[in-house]
Amino acid sequence: MKVSTKHIRMSVLVYMAVFILVVFVCVHSSGSKPNIVVLFADDVGYGDLACYGHPASYTPNLDGMAKNGMLFTSFYSAANLCSPSRAALLTGRYHIRSGIYPFVLGPDSTGGLPRNETTIANILKQQGYHTAMIGKWDLGIGKDMVHFPMHYGFDKYYGVPYVHGACPCETCFYPHEGCQQSVIGGDKCGFDKTYCPLFQNMRIIQQPVDLLTLAEKYVDFAKDFITDSANAGESFFLYLAYNHCHFPQFAGKRFHNFTQRGIYGDSLAEIDWSVGEILQQLRHSQIENNTLVFFTSDNGAALRDWYNGGSSGMLKCGKATTYEGGHRVPAIAYWPGQITAGVSSRDFLTTLDLLPTITKLSGSVLPKVTIDGMDMSSVLFGQAKSARDNLLYYPAYPDKKIGAYAIRYKHYKAHFYTEGSPQSGMYNADTDCHPNNTLHHDPPLLYDLDRDPGELYNMNKEPQYKDVLEEIKQVKTKLEDAMIWGTSQVNKPKDPRLEPCCIPGCDPFPSCCRCD
Amino acid sequence: MKVSTKHIRMSVLVYMAVFILVVFVCVHSSGSKPNIVVLFADDVGYGDLACYGHPASYTPNLDGMAKNGMLFTSFYSAANLCSPSRAALLTGRYHIRSGIYPFVLGPDSTGGLPRNETTIANILKQQGYHTAMIGKWDLGIGKDMVHFPMHYGFDKYYGVPYVHGACPCETCFYPHEGCQQSVIGGDKCGFDKTYCPLFQNMRIIQQPVDLLTLAEKYVDFAKDFITDSANAGESFFLYLAYNHCHFPQFAGKRFHNFTQRGIYGDSLAEIDWSVGEILQQLRHSQIENNTLVFFTSDNGAALRDWYNGGSSGMLKCGKATTYEGGHRVPAIAYWPGQITAGVSSRDFLTTLDLLPTITKLSGSVLPKVTIDGMDMSSVLFGQAKSARDNLLYYPAYPDKKIGAYAIRYKHYKAHFYTEGSPQSGMYNADTDCHPNNTLHHDPPLLYDLDRDPGELYNMNKEPQYKDVLEEIKQVKTKLEDAMIWGTSQVNKPKDPRLEPCCIPGCDPFPSCCRCD
Repeated sequence: MKVSTKHIRMSVLVYMAVFILVVFVCVHSSGSKPNIVVLFADDVGYGDLACYGHPASYTPNLDGMAKNGMLFTSFYSAANLCSPSRAALLTGRYHIRSGIYPFVLGPDSTGGLPRNETTIANILKQQGYHTAMIGKWDLGIGKDMVHFPMHYGFDKYYGVPYVHGACPCETCFYPHEGCQQSVIGGDKCGFDKTYCPLFQNMRIIQQPVDLLTLAEKYVDFAKDFITDSANAGESFFLYLAYNHCHFPQFAGKRFHNFTQRGIYGDSLAEIDWSVGEILQQLRHSQIENNTLVFFTSDNGAALRDWYNGGSSGMLKCGKATTYEGGHRVPAIAYWPGQITAGVSSRDFLTTLDLLPTITKLSGSVLPKVTIDGMDMSSVLFGQAKSARDNLLYYPAYPDKKIGAYAIRYKHYKAHFYTEGSPQSGMYNADTDCHPNNTLHHDPPLLYDLDRDPGELYNMNKEPQYKDVLEEIKQVKTKLEDAMIWGTSQVNKPKDPRLEPCCIPGCDPFPSCCRCD
Repeated sequence: MKVSTKHIRMSVLVYMAVFILVVFVCVHSSGSKPNIVVLFADDVGYGDLACYGHPASYTPNLDGMAKNGMLFTSFYSAANLCSPSRAALLTGRYHIRSGIYPFVLGPDSTGGLPRNETTIANILKQQGYHTAMIGKWDLGIGKDMVHFPMHYGFDKYYGVPYVHGACPCETCFYPHEGCQQSVIGGDKCGFDKTYCPLFQNMRIIQQPVDLLTLAEKYVDFAKDFITDSANAGESFFLYLAYNHCHFPQFAGKRFHNFTQRGIYGDSLAEIDWSVGEILQQLRHSQIENNTLVFFTSDNGAALRDWYNGGSSGMLKCGKATTYEGGHRVPAIAYWPGQITAGVSSRDFLTTLDLLPTITKLSGSVLPKVTIDGMDMSSVLFGQAKSARDNLLYYPAYPDKKIGAYAIRYKHYKAHFYTEGSPQSGMYNADTDCHPNNTLHHDPPLLYDLDRDPGELYNMNKEPQYKDVLEEIKQVKTKLEDAMIWGTSQVNKPKDPRLEPCCIPGCDPFPSCCRCD
């Protein structure tokens, strides 16, 4: 057989192709540290996604994540409000420890997440991860931006760092259709504040931000970040905290009047679209099998927003309450090849557990502070049941003398105090959700959450529950004795001059803060 | 080439195999009329299945049906109680027409479904179908069993024909664990009635029935019926109306204490198991691709049963009310190769539509009476959206002078009257669900069910809804003008001697009615 020059050229090409393939596979091999994507929605309640039973939501990408991943039905946010829940997620510690209470931080807060707290980004950064945050930081800005994400382990930041309801004139996105009405605050919000800023790292790149193109901008940034990391062969951590679906709800033109569910449905559909884009980018970059994607929400549904708000599904009340509707949230974990497809898990887990889990997955070690979370990687991989047996529920305005209002212990929940909230709806059919009705319960109200997730049937008078009620009291006392309350960061003085302004020192403040 | 005897023998075998295959394919071809299986659960609410968001239910087979079929989120039972809803499903007509009101028929009723009503079984029988019913008939027995299923187009009947709560001593299935408590009726039921009978066709084969092995018996009967029909090459109609999960809930030993959700969860898990067995039999008989399986429930959750009852999910109130929790039910259609897998449909459909749909699928014609249902086959096959735009909601005790309490029109719902019910929970946090609170609303309460499936936010004061409210009033008037009220069958005299007894004429009645 003769060997022609053509044959030799072809062989060389084949060898080169194999070599490139081998290099490519090595770079992208599952042996490298897994990428982590945390997608954190705002005010999306337990009943909001189609895969959690909402009859009019349009969430095909999230439903697909659930179908090909693990959907959790007993997953909790550690807090029932924006800033506290973000502090808890990023530190693996109750927000009580970091002082992110009462209620939330604002753009004029001098306080913020204490700089000595260790975040998931800090841990992964030490492991050589490329780290980025997109969206609603909500853990303070402060003097000289000392509380900005870049100081907490994030290489990059891109987004509107706090709630857009704290900016003026953002309830009339499509003015010819009229403005949104909120039961509290009417159709107006934050008129005395600076316009909503869009930041890239420490710099404002648009003020006021165009919220109608925000989802696209976030997706573009996320895709670039994923592509760059994949091309560089770097493991990465992407934390995308959506400004959707907080009041006033918005959606870009593509999703405007897109769903049957109105503006909330449109806003949620836009989140869903962006999730789909990110998953597609992971596939396209061929790193899907080495990436854990975790979707959840910061707290339950904001029922104050009438039909413009979210849904707690079958759960009682919503945001800013210690009922299940305030804390239990949708959660989906997705990792093809690692997490078995289509599992509906009843394991008891919380946002506190993300830090220890991610620490484990990245081969890192936990910071030397009290961590309230637990490694749940074995739950994700179907190797074990959750070992968590308790969660403390703190109210929107925690008081050290009172402590946690409620505790879940195993599948029981005891309410020592209850209260409603303006956030949970003045018009809710269940008057327990209404504001201004703090009640002390002795004996505590007792519910079996497996049989009665809606907290309808108090069992504290049933003799067979006497022992478990005593046990719960002891567990709560023990947990609270070990709780060290950080100084409140929210109660630190406010300073309107800290509000982000693209023209520092301009006049008349704040309306002069306009750039594009 | 030489042709050996061995070769000839092999060729003959191959030809025979091909011939057998051809015959087999012809018998089982999709050209034959499709088999129909309707699975009808009792008191299973909108929020009860895991695939509808329940956090503690165990329903892998039903979830699998949804994953590989079509799950409906706006599917309604035409009535909110057992007997009326069964009349409506089988006739495609409101129960008002057939007189199956007020409330329900009992074993001592002299009335029943009028013999001149045409059922799905009647229609399919005319098309040569093999027809069978299993379970809770609930449309009367009557003198000489004139109202038994065999008189309505069913070749075979097997089951407990009415609610087991109407039989004595059936709340202590595992006596050492104590008896079930119901908020109404305590832990006792029907002590003055005959023991629950298990019928095969017109004959009692066990009295009292052993409810703990009932699911297995139903499955065995269903499998035999499917196998026999498949072997005979006959198209068939199987209507399985479960006695599960009505109070007092029960589950066989295999499912006793099987779920986290208690006795209701166990009972539901047993339904789920039986669904799995039936689907497996269809696969095994190689007729899965020529069989429509439709699962739904007779009405919403019975919330009177505390944590032993079902869940309405995010919907308001439950059974025996005209709120969404009374009428909107889970529904799953499954037909591999015909119904696209994994579709979540928001189409507006009802149990009334099953008769016209099945009529169409079987190539038959509708009976010459007023049919309230619509053919939805094109919705099942993804070829069209539902053309239905209305549903009348009649109360548990309908009154011709008042008419329907509520109407859904497109995605709006108007309540002209509302009332709670003992069936919907005296202890519900929403006092609207409590009994004895019938209210007349003028103007009617108005809800946008797409934005607000929980009927929380009444819009009748909003000027932009004025026109639609007027339109709804007109539609309702027109529909009710065309409604011909049948004579009440339930109000016909009761006769305890009609209660099924395996030893006719025995004494002391009814306790002497015992056989095995």
